[in-house]
Amino acid sequence: MVNPTPNSIFSLTLRLQIPNRVGMLASVTQAIASCGGTLGQIDLVERTRSQAIRDLTVDASSTEQAEAIVQAVGALPEIEVINVYDRTFNLHRGGKISVNSRISLKSQDDLAMAYTPGVGRVCLAIARDPEQVYSLTIKQNTVAIVTDGSAVLELGNLGAAGALPVMEGKATIFKEFAGINAFPICLATQDTEAIIATVKKIVPVFGGVDLEDIAAPHCFEIEQRLRQELDIPVFHGDRQGTAIATLAALANALKLVNKSLAEVRIVINGAGAAGVAIARLLKNAGAVHILLCDSKGILSTQRQDLTAQKQEFAVSQMGTLAGALVGTDVFIGVSAPGILTRDMVRSMAKNPIVMAMANPIPEIQPELVADDVAVMATGRSDYPNQIDSILAFPGIFRGALDCRATTITTMMCLEAAQAIASLVTPTELNREHIIPSIFDARVVPTVAAAVQRAARQEGIARC
Amino acid sequence: MVNPTPNSIFSLTLRLQIPNRVGMLASVTQAIASCGGTLGQIDLVERTRSQAIRDLTVDASSTEQAEAIVQAVGALPEIEVINVYDRTFNLHRGGKISVNSRISLKSQDDLAMAYTPGVGRVCLAIARDPEQVYSLTIKQNTVAIVTDGSAVLELGNLGAAGALPVMEGKATIFKEFAGINAFPICLATQDTEAIIATVKKIVPVFGGVDLEDIAAPHCFEIEQRLRQELDIPVFHGDRQGTAIATLAALANALKLVNKSLAEVRIVINGAGAAGVAIARLLKNAGAVHILLCDSKGILSTQRQDLTAQKQEFAVSQMGTLAGALVGTDVFIGVSAPGILTRDMVRSMAKNPIVMAMANPIPEIQPELVADDVAVMATGRSDYPNQIDSILAFPGIFRGALDCRATTITTMMCLEAAQAIASLVTPTELNREHIIPSIFDARVVPTVAAAVQRAARQEGIARC
Repeated sequence: MVNPTPNSIFSLTLRLQIPNRVGMLASVTQAIASCGGTLGQIDLVERTRSQAIRDLTVDASSTEQAEAIVQAVGALPEIEVINVYDRTFNLHRGGKISVNSRISLKSQDDLAMAYTPGVGRVCLAIARDPEQVYSLTIKQNTVAIVTDGSAVLELGNLGAAGALPVMEGKATIFKEFAGINAFPICLATQDTEAIIATVKKIVPVFGGVDLEDIAAPHCFEIEQRLRQELDIPVFHGDRQGTAIATLAALANALKLVNKSLAEVRIVINGAGAAGVAIARLLKNAGAVHILLCDSKGILSTQRQDLTAQKQEFAVSQMGTLAGALVGTDVFIGVSAPGILTRDMVRSMAKNPIVMAMANPIPEIQPELVADDVAVMATGRSDYPNQIDSILAFPGIFRGALDCRATTITTMMCLEAAQAIASLVTPTELNREHIIPSIFDARVVPTVAAAVQRAARQEGIARC
Repeated sequence: MVNPTPNSIFSLTLRLQIPNRVGMLASVTQAIASCGGTLGQIDLVERTRSQAIRDLTVDASSTEQAEAIVQAVGALPEIEVINVYDRTFNLHRGGKISVNSRISLKSQDDLAMAYTPGVGRVCLAIARDPEQVYSLTIKQNTVAIVTDGSAVLELGNLGAAGALPVMEGKATIFKEFAGINAFPICLATQDTEAIIATVKKIVPVFGGVDLEDIAAPHCFEIEQRLRQELDIPVFHGDRQGTAIATLAALANALKLVNKSLAEVRIVINGAGAAGVAIARLLKNAGAVHILLCDSKGILSTQRQDLTAQKQEFAVSQMGTLAGALVGTDVFIGVSAPGILTRDMVRSMAKNPIVMAMANPIPEIQPELVADDVAVMATGRSDYPNQIDSILAFPGIFRGALDCRATTITTMMCLEAAQAIASLVTPTELNREHIIPSIFDARVVPTVAAAVQRAARQEGIARC
């Protein structure tokens, strides 16, 4: 496994008191470099005749390295470490979202209109005509981010509180990327029926439900049941969003190698929530030859250990991932760091496409097979072709809320993928640019428009 | 019943095209006045040689009167009504709160710290040490406003959606008055057990639970059970808040008439959630002689129709409200418009105190008994001595959150009432000023400080 490069995940700001003499700052930067840290901003906070106080921002590649840097700097003669800020922790302190008032409450008149008694007329209007809740409240633009904390990122089962920082992060993304109010609902239960019952009870306030970081297989039943039982869109943001982004990237990658989705052989490694969602969406998009593998190899009808979702993709053949890959056109990994070898990639068909999306460390480091693949994509932002659910879920919900769709259909997902892919024009398309950046401002409106169009065509738009 | 005066609850803005001739605007203002409307702002939007377009803001006293005004203006020759805005409805449109990001997400670096992979370290820190959820997430400053919509203001059972505009209003008050993030949880159930179960499931995100507009008697069990089963403060904002504000007002009113809480005879009319809360708090504050009445008269042990909460205050005597009031020092009404007569007030003891808090129309119009009472208070902002739960609940939660109190105790409520009362100094105290304005900026910090002090004394503060 390749050591990750220093990055802002482990970013510190050191406030140092440094004597005002030639070479003193250099001794600090030298100590940081020798520990493997990289320097960012250097700010001069204060300077007297004899001393300078400076803030140095340093990126490390791990907590251990960050601590080593602080120790190395502290051990330097005449250098005093006044303070160490962990920038990531500081960013999260106090929470990353806030609930704000959109109106002014400065006078009795304001209160009389916003609150009692004026609000009474608004309440009665909704009680008489329930559809009015969409125009007269936040429901029209508000999504519940629901999790039980059972599969938080790659970290596993951290529970409700441990998941909250991620859900707050999703909420900031909903607002910043799509203007949507999203609020975290982190549940103190991991029981399927209790989760379904709770979401059904709190749903009057929300125009949509975004399921996040719920483990397979109970995520499947929760999603399916809530879709059946609620009249607002229910979407599994991380897994379905990843599937849409994957389809968009694959569609463009196939153009580069002149192959069609219907003819290529695809191996998906990882048969959890994301793997199954990708397999289903690719199938709906026209893919025919899909082999799904889990940690025990190909999902085979001969195996006795498959869940219902895994059985859906079981084939008669048995075998390992390595065996499955021989002669295959496309590898899609949503599994574990470093499980793909260079030899496996070399065993694939001509012009192979490799999407190694394990996070933060992919199934294979791109530089190892740069010359062996036609196209490489990962989930990381520091390599070309980042496949991230952020490309999909903000626009999906923007579109669904804007037309008050009753659900999210497969067609809406396929159109969303097509919309994302379309943002890379034929002249722009190349092996390092098969998918737009998540910061491309066109992504959300383009996806939202496609989703709305599909909803109207299918007759599930309510306005 | 006295007809209410025009007010901003029924406030319209009429956009009119008016010929540029002498007397034309006067004909409009005359038509509005003859319907009983009062004029607010008059803005000139545009003027040509022959016509002027003006926005006229008009307050009415009812929907019917507002409609009559629009018709009367529309019927005037040469005056064209271009548009009519209902200011109250416009204020509520799209909702009154928003969920905002507190951080910037402009670059990959921002995302890597706020979201994956940087957030992973923060999640793990909470999973390892659950108390960290207070410092690293919104929990420290976030309250769930929970309702089942079974007793929305004076309007009754409107259900979850019908209650949402009120809960959004509460959320705006929490933010504007106390800087607290509050989010509406409007439940699609009115079943006691289902409500308790749902709140227990969603609680990881919240530092406190504010129950609102839940009908008696199931509100009592919900409150009691949640207090027992949760380790965060649970408070019934409207009813307990009203009780605290009532106690504060009564304490000051009694100073004016030189009577003590222990000696006065008190009649509370209305034995719902608010009446019971007031009776309990007054008792805890030292009141001894309390008669609680409902629509059938005094709560008497001889009656067979009393709920458990009503039995708590049942006395041996039977009788009507009118009978109960004879010789009584204090009337507290949380009941129905106009049920108190001048004769009843005149039958009370010398220097009677009347708190007629039915909303929006009190048990008796203050002007009817101005010469008969020592002190009069209502729930209205357009009379002196407004008793409103807003005086209490923002400060109660501010104080409880700031010291991470595990619950709200009676002592905290008593101290909060004392803190509110203390803001009217002896030199300021008079019959038209027994309680501070809800817009007095000292109220929230003073209440919060008192609540924190009490929590620390009782050993229920966690920081």
